[in-house]
This record gives sequence, structure tokens and C-alpha cells, in this order.
Amino acid sequence: MANDRSYRIDSARIAAQDPARPADAAGIATDADTVAVVDGRIAWVGLRDDLSPVHRDLPAEDAKRALLTPALIDCHTHIVHGGDRAREFAMRLEGARYEDIARAGGGILSTVRATRALDEAALVAEALPRVDRLLSEGVATLEIKSGYGLTIDSELTMLRAARRLAQVRPVRVRTTWLAAHALPPEYEGRADAYLEDVCLEGLRQADAEGLVDAVDAFCETIAFSPDQVARLFDLARDLGLPVKLHAEQLSDQGGAALVARSGGLSADHLEWLDDAGIAAMAKAGTVAVMLPGAFYTLRETRLPPVEALRAAGVPMAVATDCNPGTSPLDSLLLAMNMACTLFRLTPAEALSGTTRHAAAALGLDDAGVIAPGRRADLALWDVTDPAALSYRIGANPLRRRFFAGAEA
Amino acid sequence: MANDRSYRIDSARIAAQDPARPADAAGIATDADTVAVVDGRIAWVGLRDDLSPVHRDLPAEDAKRALLTPALIDCHTHIVHGGDRAREFAMRLEGARYEDIARAGGGILSTVRATRALDEAALVAEALPRVDRLLSEGVATLEIKSGYGLTIDSELTMLRAARRLAQVRPVRVRTTWLAAHALPPEYEGRADAYLEDVCLEGLRQADAEGLVDAVDAFCETIAFSPDQVARLFDLARDLGLPVKLHAEQLSDQGGAALVARSGGLSADHLEWLDDAGIAAMAKAGTVAVMLPGAFYTLRETRLPPVEALRAAGVPMAVATDCNPGTSPLDSLLLAMNMACTLFRLTPAEALSGTTRHAAAALGLDDAGVIAPGRRADLALWDVTDPAALSYRIGANPLRRRFFAGAEA
Ligand SMILES: [Zn+2]
Ligand SMILES: [Zn+2]
Repeated sequence: MANDRSYRIDSARIAAQDPARPADAAGIATDADTVAVVDGRIAWVGLRDDLSPVHRDLPAEDAKRALLTPALIDCHTHIVHGGDRAREFAMRLEGARYEDIARAGGGILSTVRATRALDEAALVAEALPRVDRLLSEGVATLEIKSGYGLTIDSELTMLRAARRLAQVRPVRVRTTWLAAHALPPEYEGRADAYLEDVCLEGLRQADAEGLVDAVDAFCETIAFSPDQVARLFDLARDLGLPVKLHAEQLSDQGGAALVARSGGLSADHLEWLDDAGIAAMAKAGTVAVMLPGAFYTLRETRLPPVEALRAAGVPMAVATDCNPGTSPLDSLLLAMNMACTLFRLTPAEALSGTTRHAAAALGLDDAGVIAPGRRADLALWDVTDPAALSYRIGANPLRRRFFAGAEA
Repeated sequence: MANDRSYRIDSARIAAQDPARPADAAGIATDADTVAVVDGRIAWVGLRDDLSPVHRDLPAEDAKRALLTPALIDCHTHIVHGGDRAREFAMRLEGARYEDIARAGGGILSTVRATRALDEAALVAEALPRVDRLLSEGVATLEIKSGYGLTIDSELTMLRAARRLAQVRPVRVRTTWLAAHALPPEYEGRADAYLEDVCLEGLRQADAEGLVDAVDAFCETIAFSPDQVARLFDLARDLGLPVKLHAEQLSDQGGAALVARSGGLSADHLEWLDDAGIAAMAKAGTVAVMLPGAFYTLRETRLPPVEALRAAGVPMAVATDCNPGTSPLDSLLLAMNMACTLFRLTPAEALSGTTRHAAAALGLDDAGVIAPGRRADLALWDVTDPAALSYRIGANPLRRRFFAGAEA
């Protein structure tokens, strides 16, 4: 069955993530235990007893009451980058001061240097162990941002490496242009010039090469201002590209409202999000992407306003933010546990946050839900309760992953 | 080479954990890059250039500058138990009150019920995925406590299951008698009777059957008093068994001083440890076992006094505390990251804490260090800097694990 893309999965406990389907308190569909897959797409979801003749002769696998979910989606990563920051991590804990670390070449600019030094193949090779770790947990779709090159050439190389990953592994990659991530040293004191020369001009080139699925920026006092972000979003609109934003991570810049006004797919981080931002996101349908790995690593204490987001009906996603500095996190299951333990999401919200709502954060309407017509990106788990995926810490109960129907 | 127990590992970066060996700032031996293993023991450690003729003809593997450490030791687990608490985890996050959870059969007594219902083979089967997860991270020695049976029969069954795990997997298991973990409902209000009937009498039986390597208790207002613990320790002394203690997790009971006065191997948790306890531990050489998984899961805010322990020269270990309620953590590498991120241990301390000092917490003098005469329990990693093991979150860079010399 491994490479056959038409088959049935029988006797599963299906967490379909489909709001149209009735489910029990744990989130298991009460009107379905069987999925028919035809040519890599979900053809039918229902009770084995109601199977139509057309799906009766498909080769079938007995899931034996195991949990079946949509394959997971990691909707916010910086997984393509050069080098690591293990020595800097050690130095900080050994008591080094900021200047010591800067002198030793640490900080984000060390990642920029390491990334600029690598070509596309080397960036792919460095990212692969991290990507493989995510795939081993049932991830089938991965967002990957640029943002450590900070020259047009190096940013394009990062996005080419991101696209390449989807050719060497069974995974779908969505790329995001994030040149407005940090100011490179050669533009110190000239952020507007950097925006013009690299962020805007590079975006035109990257888009012309078909490398960009969305546009992002880091809106923060230490990064780019709302005005600068707005100029970037104007160009994105002209190019017909959706936008998202690193917003309200360290202070309230009104970034979430800005990206919502632009009809943005998502606002990400959000520890300092205020009520106006929540209202704007709710109105626009902008997804709130929770990144507890960064909160944990930075030992932040201010929590994102989960209760208010929930009350306002803002969809919440959960992602790794996999990056070498503030979230060296290679596990989306662990991000789900952190979202529950640290941010008080429910396990049901954590799972929606890495399936249905993560798909929305990427503008995808063909993944993240088990329903007819969707891609057969599926994960079968050695647990029965969806809450078990968020409950354990550092475990991996994946039994099997299906990518566009193919077992992989 | 896989099953040959005599060989060499050449060109490694060796984090020997041997205080007698010179090392660089990252903890890599400066006078050794080669380990000779003979019959499952380390025979020689030094520079390839200084190899004696006797080790020259051993089959050799080129580590290509990869990191070689002692295999890891998880010195505090409750990994043998029945059931899980995923539904309780979900209920809490969905806002259930304590009484709702109790009515739904939650809490530690739900684990007691599930554990009592299982025989030895079933307990082994439930523990195996968790054990395998730890072995996949380079763990070669595992402490396992009883404490969810709370009858003599069920406690003995737990320890037999623990011993059995070492027969079905290449891992060394050290067992700990922890009947004084919680009071079972049938002894409500009669803790002294429980101590006498089960903790003391059961210990005699378990010791007679050779099932006990150490004796432990949970010293806390909600569990057992220092006086009750002292009675248990008296029997342990009479039986010639070393002691350890769950101490100062939720309040200061003077448990650390108590276990230190008994010459105890370790005091574990220690968030509420005071200066007198630190002094007593330093004097006795009692190891401080850090359990950040429980701190994280319970969202505690009071940190163990790491700085004072360091200043007093108390050896610090790090363990998973793998248990279904307060630390459902299956990853010792993640415990190391948490020990650094949450407790501010250095990565070097985290690694000593899962090798040399973890061995001391179990009373083992033949593991945890790469030095002649020790067991060849080794881990070879796809990183170069020992700090990388603590730096990444949810990754597993293990290349190869050696258990008593055998690759496994
Ligand atoms: Zn980010
Ligand atoms: Zn414990």
C-alpha cells in the first residue's frame, strides 16, 4: 500500500477538524470511522457500514481504533539558516555579558554571517535534519521564511533552498519573504534605504522568480516601524501577495491591527496584543499564531491574551518558530504541549492550531481538515485520545504519515 | 563492529567528564581523541599518536571529530506505571474544577488503579515505548521507582517489571523502593499503619527478593512526614540499602538535611531547599537532582537554589522524573534544555548532571565517565560542541549508542 494513492483506512478514531461533522468531547467524529482516499485526495469520510460500492474494493487498512488526524502543519519557521548558536547559549548561561557575546561574534548577525556563507545546497543540507525531525512527527506542510541573508542574493538563495526541500523530501513548503527581519550592519542607521534597496527591490525579484507565497516583517522597536511595514505591504498588495507579521512580541506596536487591516493571513507572537488588535483580527479573520518556543526560550512572563482571542473568535494556530536564536525548537508536538502548558490552550485548540488553523495561516484551503476533496495528508497515531498528542513531553507516538495519499 | 565489544573509536571530540583530564572551555579533552574498548570496558583513553602496541590492531572507527560522551543516565524516573492522564490534562485546561477531575477518576489515584490492574508483562509493555524513547537519545542507565502500586504485591510487581526491562532492552536499570509515595485510599487517615504494613514490610520482602537498589520516599505535607521517613530510613540502614528522597518540592520540610544525615545518595526536586539543607548535602556528598520537567508542568515559579548549590560544591544531576501526572517527559535531552533554560544550569553542568553526577546519584562508580576501567557505555553525537545537546529543543543528534561496549 505504501506507494498506492488509492485505499481506505478503516476503524480509525477520526479527529477530522471539520466543523461540519459531529464529534464527541475528545474531538472524535461520531459519524465516521473510515476514510477513502482516491488518487491522493480524500474521496469519502463516513461509517464503514455506509460505504458505497465505489469504495468497497479499495485496498483497506484496519487502523484498530488508532487516532487519525490531518497531517500536521508548521506555519511559522526559520528552518533554513546557517550555523547554530550553541556556544552563545552556553556563554550566556556561564554569565557572559552582552558585549562579550557580541565580541565573540554572537547574536542574530552571527546567523546572518553563517547564512550568507552558504550556497543553496549547503543551506538545504543544514536544514534537512531539522525538517526530517518535523516529518517524523507527522508534519506534511511547512512554512519557511527568508530573513537571515539580508542581501537580495542571499535572501533569494534562502527561498530557493526552501523550495528545494520540497523536492528532496515528501513535504509541501510555503515560502515567506522576510527580508525585513533585521537591519544588516552595512545599513546601520539607514533602515529606509535597506527597505528600499533590499526588502522592496528583492521582493520584486523574488516574486518574478516565483519564490514567494507570502510577505512578512518583524514589526518592533528594535526592527521595523509600522510605517516601514506599511510600505512593504503596499508592494505586496500590488504584487497580489498575502501578508503576515511578527507583531506585538516585545511591545505593542499596533502591528496586529496593521496586518489585519491589510487582510493579512496571520499575526504571530502577540504577547503584547491589545483589545483593538484583537478586534481588528477578529473582523479580518486574521489567524493568531502562538509561538510558545520563543516565549519559553526568552523566559518571557507576559502571556498572549488567549482568553480574549478565544472570546473574540480569532482562530489560533501553533508553530515552532524553529530558529537558531530565540526558538531552537525542532518539534511541533512539543510546541503543542508548550501552548497548553504555558499559554493554557486546550489540547483541542492545540491540535486545531497545527491543522485547520495552521492551514488558514498559510492561506491553504486544501489541507488541515479530513474532508472530501482535501489532500490526503494524514497522520495515524499510536494513541486514542487527541489530547495525548499535547499531553506528553518529548514523545512521538506517530505510527504512519501519509503525504498526498502516499505513505512517507 | 556492531556486536564486537573490543575496538577503538578514533578522532573523536571527547567530553570525558573526568575531572583528572584537562579540557578546553567547551569541555573537550585536550589530551585525548581516542578510546580503546576491550571486552566492553574502557581500556585506554588518549591521543591516537600515543597508542600502545596492544591497542594498535583493534578494529577502529573514525569518529570524524564528532562528540563522544559517556552514555546518558536518567537517575529519577517513574517510568513503570499503568495508564496515562491525557484526559485529565485536557479537563484541567478546559476549566474543570478539582472535584470534577476527582469525580471523573483523575489524579494520582487513577494511576494507582491503572497500575494495580496490570501484571508484570503488561507493565513492561506499557513502559517500553517510553524506555525506547530514552534509549534513542543515548541513555544506557535508568533508575525506576515503584510507588503506584501501594500494596506489597503491586509494588513488587512494579519492581519486577523494572528489572525485566533490563532483560528485554540493552539498558541497565537501578530500582528504587518508593511505597512511601502516596497514601492509598484504604489507609486514609492511617499513614502510620500504611508505613508499617506496606512500606516497611514490603521493603523487607522486596529486599529479600533482590528487587531493591535504593529506598526513597515523598517527604511533604501532602505525603509523608520527616518522622515517618526517618523510620523508613532506619530499616534501609539495617538492610544495608542506600537512601534518597523527594525533598523540598512544594515546601521546606527539612527533607534534604534528613537524607544527607543518613548519608543519602540524593535529594531530589529541592525548589524550597534552604541553606541548612545545602550545607548538610555538601557535607555528606549528597547529589542534588534537578527535575525541571515537574517544575515546568506544574508551572512553578520558585526556582531551586542553583547558585547556592554551585557555591557549596553540591553535585547537581538532571533527570526526567518521567511520570504520568506531574512530568510526562520522555526526553532526557529536553530535561537538560529545561535545566539550562528554566534553572540556569550551564550546558556543561547539564551534561555532568546526566552522566557523572547522575551515576553518583545512583551510587554507581563504573559509569558516567570515560576513563579506563569504566563500562564502555558511550554516546556518539552528530554535533561537535557538548553545549549543542542542551541548546536545541526537541532534537536528537544521537549517531550511535554503545552499551557495555556493544553497539545498541
Ligand atoms: Zn519568527
Ligand atoms: Zn519523582
